[in-house]
Amino acid sequence: MSDYFRKIAPLSFAPDSENLAFRHYDADEIVLGKPMKDHLRFAVAYWHSFGWEGGDPFGGRTFERPWFPADTMALAEARAEAAFDFFRILGAPYYCFHDHDVRPEGASLAESRDRLNRIADIFQQKMEAGGPKLLWGTANLFSNRRYMSGAATNPDPDVFAYAAATVRDCLDVTQRLGGENYVLWGGREGYETLLNTDLGKELDQMGRFLSMVVDYKHRIGFKGAILIEPKPQEPTKHQYDYDVATVYGFLRRYGLEEEVKVNIEQGHAILAGHSFEHEIALANALGIFGSIDMNRNDQQSGWDTDQFPSNVPEVALAYYEILRGGGFTTGGTNFDAKIRRQSLDAEDLVAAHAGAMDVCARGLKAAAKMLEEGRLEAARDARYAGWQSEAAQAMLAPGARLDQIADAAVARGLDPQPVSGRQEQLENLVNRYV
Amino acid sequence: MSDYFRKIAPLSFAPDSENLAFRHYDADEIVLGKPMKDHLRFAVAYWHSFGWEGGDPFGGRTFERPWFPADTMALAEARAEAAFDFFRILGAPYYCFHDHDVRPEGASLAESRDRLNRIADIFQQKMEAGGPKLLWGTANLFSNRRYMSGAATNPDPDVFAYAAATVRDCLDVTQRLGGENYVLWGGREGYETLLNTDLGKELDQMGRFLSMVVDYKHRIGFKGAILIEPKPQEPTKHQYDYDVATVYGFLRRYGLEEEVKVNIEQGHAILAGHSFEHEIALANALGIFGSIDMNRNDQQSGWDTDQFPSNVPEVALAYYEILRGGGFTTGGTNFDAKIRRQSLDAEDLVAAHAGAMDVCARGLKAAAKMLEEGRLEAARDARYAGWQSEAAQAMLAPGARLDQIADAAVARGLDPQPVSGRQEQLENLVNRYV
Amino acid sequence: MSDYFRKIAPLSFAPDSENLAFRHYDADEIVLGKPMKDHLRFAVAYWHSFGWEGGDPFGGRTFERPWFPADTMALAEARAEAAFDFFRILGAPYYCFHDHDVRPEGASLAESRDRLNRIADIFQQKMEAGGPKLLWGTANLFSNRRYMSGAATNPDPDVFAYAAATVRDCLDVTQRLGGENYVLWGGREGYETLLNTDLGKELDQMGRFLSMVVDYKHRIGFKGAILIEPKPQEPTKHQYDYDVATVYGFLRRYGLEEEVKVNIEQGHAILAGHSFEHEIALANALGIFGSIDMNRNDQQSGWDTDQFPSNVPEVALAYYEILRGGGFTTGGTNFDAKIRRQSLDAEDLVAAHAGAMDVCARGLKAAAKMLEEGRLEAARDARYAGWQSEAAQAMLAPGARLDQIADAAVARGLDPQPVSGRQEQLENLVNRYV
Amino acid sequence: MSDYFRKIAPLSFAPDSENLAFRHYDADEIVLGKPMKDHLRFAVAYWHSFGWEGGDPFGGRTFERPWFPADTMALAEARAEAAFDFFRILGAPYYCFHDHDVRPEGASLAESRDRLNRIADIFQQKMEAGGPKLLWGTANLFSNRRYMSGAATNPDPDVFAYAAATVRDCLDVTQRLGGENYVLWGGREGYETLLNTDLGKELDQMGRFLSMVVDYKHRIGFKGAILIEPKPQEPTKHQYDYDVATVYGFLRRYGLEEEVKVNIEQGHAILAGHSFEHEIALANALGIFGSIDMNRNDQQSGWDTDQFPSNVPEVALAYYEILRGGGFTTGGTNFDAKIRRQSLDAEDLVAAHAGAMDVCARGLKAAAKMLEEGRLEAARDARYAGWQSEAAQAMLAPGARLDQIADAAVARGLDPQPVSGRQEQLENLVNRYV
Ligand SMILES: [Co+2]
Ligand SMILES: [Co+2]
Ligand SMILES: [Co+2]
Ligand SMILES: [Co+2]
Ligand SMILES: [Co+2]
Ligand SMILES: [Co+2]
Ligand SMILES: [Co+2]
Ligand SMILES: [Co+2]
Repeated sequence: MSDYFRKIAPLSFAPDSENLAFRHYDADEIVLGKPMKDHLRFAVAYWHSFGWEGGDPFGGRTFERPWFPADTMALAEARAEAAFDFFRILGAPYYCFHDHDVRPEGASLAESRDRLNRIADIFQQKMEAGGPKLLWGTANLFSNRRYMSGAATNPDPDVFAYAAATVRDCLDVTQRLGGENYVLWGGREGYETLLNTDLGKELDQMGRFLSMVVDYKHRIGFKGAILIEPKPQEPTKHQYDYDVATVYGFLRRYGLEEEVKVNIEQGHAILAGHSFEHEIALANALGIFGSIDMNRNDQQSGWDTDQFPSNVPEVALAYYEILRGGGFTTGGTNFDAKIRRQSLDAEDLVAAHAGAMDVCARGLKAAAKMLEEGRLEAARDARYAGWQSEAAQAMLAPGARLDQIADAAVARGLDPQPVSGRQEQLENLVNRYV
Repeated sequence: MSDYFRKIAPLSFAPDSENLAFRHYDADEIVLGKPMKDHLRFAVAYWHSFGWEGGDPFGGRTFERPWFPADTMALAEARAEAAFDFFRILGAPYYCFHDHDVRPEGASLAESRDRLNRIADIFQQKMEAGGPKLLWGTANLFSNRRYMSGAATNPDPDVFAYAAATVRDCLDVTQRLGGENYVLWGGREGYETLLNTDLGKELDQMGRFLSMVVDYKHRIGFKGAILIEPKPQEPTKHQYDYDVATVYGFLRRYGLEEEVKVNIEQGHAILAGHSFEHEIALANALGIFGSIDMNRNDQQSGWDTDQFPSNVPEVALAYYEILRGGGFTTGGTNFDAKIRRQSLDAEDLVAAHAGAMDVCARGLKAAAKMLEEGRLEAARDARYAGWQSEAAQAMLAPGARLDQIADAAVARGLDPQPVSGRQEQLENLVNRYV
Repeated sequence: MSDYFRKIAPLSFAPDSENLAFRHYDADEIVLGKPMKDHLRFAVAYWHSFGWEGGDPFGGRTFERPWFPADTMALAEARAEAAFDFFRILGAPYYCFHDHDVRPEGASLAESRDRLNRIADIFQQKMEAGGPKLLWGTANLFSNRRYMSGAATNPDPDVFAYAAATVRDCLDVTQRLGGENYVLWGGREGYETLLNTDLGKELDQMGRFLSMVVDYKHRIGFKGAILIEPKPQEPTKHQYDYDVATVYGFLRRYGLEEEVKVNIEQGHAILAGHSFEHEIALANALGIFGSIDMNRNDQQSGWDTDQFPSNVPEVALAYYEILRGGGFTTGGTNFDAKIRRQSLDAEDLVAAHAGAMDVCARGLKAAAKMLEEGRLEAARDARYAGWQSEAAQAMLAPGARLDQIADAAVARGLDPQPVSGRQEQLENLVNRYV
Repeated sequence: MSDYFRKIAPLSFAPDSENLAFRHYDADEIVLGKPMKDHLRFAVAYWHSFGWEGGDPFGGRTFERPWFPADTMALAEARAEAAFDFFRILGAPYYCFHDHDVRPEGASLAESRDRLNRIADIFQQKMEAGGPKLLWGTANLFSNRRYMSGAATNPDPDVFAYAAATVRDCLDVTQRLGGENYVLWGGREGYETLLNTDLGKELDQMGRFLSMVVDYKHRIGFKGAILIEPKPQEPTKHQYDYDVATVYGFLRRYGLEEEVKVNIEQGHAILAGHSFEHEIALANALGIFGSIDMNRNDQQSGWDTDQFPSNVPEVALAYYEILRGGGFTTGGTNFDAKIRRQSLDAEDLVAAHAGAMDVCARGLKAAAKMLEEGRLEAARDARYAGWQSEAAQAMLAPGARLDQIADAAVARGLDPQPVSGRQEQLENLVNRYV
């Protein structure tokens, strides 16, 4: 065991303890017929928790970790050691990683791949020894300056090829480690100015790239889901995977709507002008819901703040939509979250995750109870009950005609009267659970 | 002629005049091979200019017009008289209308239709006597309380039927008046709270509704385009036609992407977090560009301010994207714009339109010159030139494989070097034209 | 008793009831040594609950109330009857009103005043018969078209005089009814365009106006507080009372910082880019905290949505800052909130207030417990403990010199090390209470 | 001369040249009676142009400069060499710097100061040899981790002392180099969470700190202005120097309103919800206008994008307010702007500045002409003309009474009628000049 977390004991469920412990997350508590942990499927993000140094655009590293700056393989190994210690303390069932945060890039594609595989060996060993499973892997196609103008959407085809090689390697490693999903976040797949951008060409490049990723997944027999993570902007002024609706249109355009799903981040939902529950509900309605990044954005900040969740009522509404849609299959609850750069200590990192897991547990339990008791759904059903009639259904059936509906409406002298939407009463109802 | 505009003479192109006149818009000036008016295809919005009374959520009518409140057919006729006087003063080639702003609603669908037809008779007469043409018609499916929970997406099927009858009548009238397009703006097709909303069901209702509109258009032989006008929110918290990308996904989902295009409003683009030129460029890339509402939003206001355009460089970039895409076919430049509620006078209404037409004329001429001289396009082409090679094209061809590209990249020892995007130099270049 | 609310029984505290009842608000429950009702001091806003008809910029009235449109004194009296029935049902201890929402404006200032007084007679009678007390009165200086360019800041001095007369009358009536505060919200004290605005002159007009209001208050012996309600914009593009910090600067400029306090609305805080608790904490720090409007804004909407509060953790943080500052003196918790325009029924209006009162009760109790247990304050004190030393205090004392501090720092070879801010641990701590 | 800019010739005014040249900025052209350069007083920001490496939160350095990473004195000297070459190419009359971007921090306060002085020796030499003058100096009190929780507002008094020593040294060097202003930007003077923050205490610390800076300025006879640069947020969630109005209130609170002025950045104005011209006009009205940072924010981005200005009409309105207020005294036009991280080349850096200077020159000339021709001012004066009457003035005079004004209003039977604000006509008027 590494030194860094030595003083922190593994967390247990101990609601009344004053020590670091779970106050609400009891992994094996049965909720809607299965253990809470199987609903929530928590994952720790390797990059933020072990790679991020506390910098922001106006200042550099604030964290002092023995494995920083991890620009050698020895330090990368120390980082891995500490990470798996941390996973054990939390008892988190999953983790996620980018190639970039687990090993220093090599001097060539080949060396980078070798290094990735060497770290993957360590991961594999740790996982076999009882460590967490891999929720998803991904390639970092945005930090290196070669990607400054995009990866798949780069004006330079060599960058496209470089990115292809990188994704191939990351997908291979993800499969080897039993990853349940593979994620693409297009942080530089966008533009800074339309003046130098061929929007249509870049979308086509991105469509072809994704099609090849899907094809390759099938070739190697990867059983996990391919997920796109939408974000409207930042780092670029405009990103092509703006939000769930945009990704859906993109997938339809390139015939990928049956092959690719979305990983929805709460913070990105907010930056795109939506609520988190909206994005989840929409993905469910469109059949492309995959997984979530459960990290909030500060509502007053215009950039991605990637904070740990803390508001139970908000989180409950998100899980409510997830449960309504049938819950996670390959997906889970990843904390793509950074502790604040002033939260310097090992204890801060542990407490942040523990608090977030408790918030999610409370949210899940409230959501499950709302669903079980069925009042919200009953109210929703009642609101649309008029559509159950045969005549109403006929209007929606293929072959229905505008003029025939119109003639009938005129003939019936229709004068429909509005009915209360009861929003406040429904909000009150939700407040009984949260 | 009505009294209201009696004192205002028809505008002419008179750059040096101190009177109300066009300083830049010379309708017959040849730009890129055709008269400016045929590029711009200006339209006046009947509702804002003749129906809006100057109210806002915190105060009522400020404008005193002899035809207010237009709740009788006599006043509606007076309004029509004034409107066509105004069109004549401006020399605008087009106008647009909703049913709601041209006649008071009747006690029944039948009476409302009759009234609409009576006003259409007047319009027809005026148009035949040399008045403007109809750019588009539309139905107001949001002001009456029956639509408070949506039109096509209403939980009550009778409202769906009522909306269908209304659109049928408006499409009929639009066709009768030779309208070149028919627009649907889904102001209430959205929700206030997810708690009472069945997102998937409502989208399906909206999809069926639109399919029937398209079907009916073909039945009656309407040759114009069907257009959806995206807007992210307001009046509702979330509207389904959020932005161009969202509408595209919606059209694909319901198989309508060849049948329906978009009417893009600058203000709505901004409220959705985009630039106007982005939305136009994207619609062109996706093949669904139709028409524009050329009214800006105040960048500091979070609601739809519907102001007349005033910033020439912004407008030039919008027309540049329109011209790059081949220009308008059925579409045009509609001013879906309100004069400010403190702009009380007839002269304000005329000056606002005249100033906006001048701004557009300047923007168009700058855009045309940029396109003619070709520097921007040359720079863009040069940036993507690497993709012209056979090897690069092969990577985008169907059948290309991720692993083969990856293997080749490794073998070639690829180490792509970034190239300057030259954004500031391109911005400087644009500034030579505006 | 009027018919409108006849079917609804007065609410009681009945946590397990399935009827309309309070589940958390037990008016006489002792919290921090006094009854909950004396902490919360709930007030109902006459205008939204009895005057607003459900309109928005895209549609008109949705509510059907027997007293609409209240453009006669008879209807205004019916409205008053219904309002006091409603107050009784809720058991709310206070209400608030504008002149505009209690009586139709007369043909002259004199008639308007007479009408106001006639309604005030009714109010007085109702109040003496056991009705609620008046938390505050105010004048509506924004709805009538005469105020379109401002009231105190109008370019026309006659409007200034008209506004002065109106405020005089409203302050008189507020005093007569025992009002505990008088509020000014400057909804039109701002501008639409700087191009026609003399910012400095308008600020001076506003400063003089407010000084005269304060002077008049003292002349008539009004003991209540004068409050300004900040809002950044809407209806105007920019409003002078932007936020708490701006109002503070304004008060200092005109020497009024000891005379005037602020009424802070959650929704307005959000529109200005702040959290509600920030505005309260700042007002406390600056010594100008007065009262609150406890109505949230939708975080995704860019305009004032004036919704009833529903998120307990948010509300708890607001009351925490209020309690830290010593609690309300003349102020209280006003619901300047509208039910959604789709919430048509009498029951919706009651439920919205009841739910909000419950949310506030939960928030208050959580806040009180946090304060009582003292952990947050202990952590805060510990963080600043270094400033307790004599040497540290000396640096803040008048007469301390930059160069002397600098020399000492150099001499001591200072190299201060950062200490964790523990944000997530504090958020976890708060989550124990909410 | 350094190698880096060797290929780029000094720019001249050559409107028709296709080479890098000024197309509008003719330094000695007389505008409103003095050379354009004396109106504009351009300054280059050392940090962005020579210190920033092209990183953002999602990726590292993109620029390759021979003086990066400048963590040795030798590289810092090479940077200085290049910077002065660049100044000479541009012919910019001023530059600005932070301590942090001109020299690597030393191991102690003393060493840092020594290093600063060694670089200042080089600057002085260059300046005496005909280099630009110093518009302002400043201390970077935000990048080092010691400042993570603030400088003057830090919970640790040692950080306060450290910051004091740093400002002392920077002010000394600024004076030695003949700096015309000294700026304080409080990038970390704010908070991430209220939960660990004592707002009132931190404001008092900041007030004392600033008072000591002012005192020290007088002690050493520094004749320049002390300026605060407002910014609402970023890096912190909330910054105390939110906007001009907030800074004004702060200055009044600590009695500094005669001693300290503001340096207004366009991008920060936008992030605070204002227009640039608003902030300038307000600072003029409050008597605290000092200088500007002429760098725009992308209107769609929620973080500080610090882009070079490119929109002439916007810039013209800013200079219009500056000229209306009498123009700069000690202040000037600083480009606190970054070239985009994809703009890799030396030529990009030069072109960005040259283009920006041209945009400013066009804006200034348009503004000057608007002011000279006087139409806007005539319209504004006419709008407020009613206030010229003796009766109107009496209402604003000290001693005027609300009740007397009210009585007179009632007696006169006042019924003021609104007058058009003519916004669109004024916007049209502005468009004649830009
Ligand atoms: Co994020
Ligand atoms: Co994420
Ligand atoms: Co609009
Ligand atoms: Co529109
Ligand atoms: Co409000
Ligand atoms: Co309010
Ligand atoms: Co900035
Ligand atoms: Co700046």
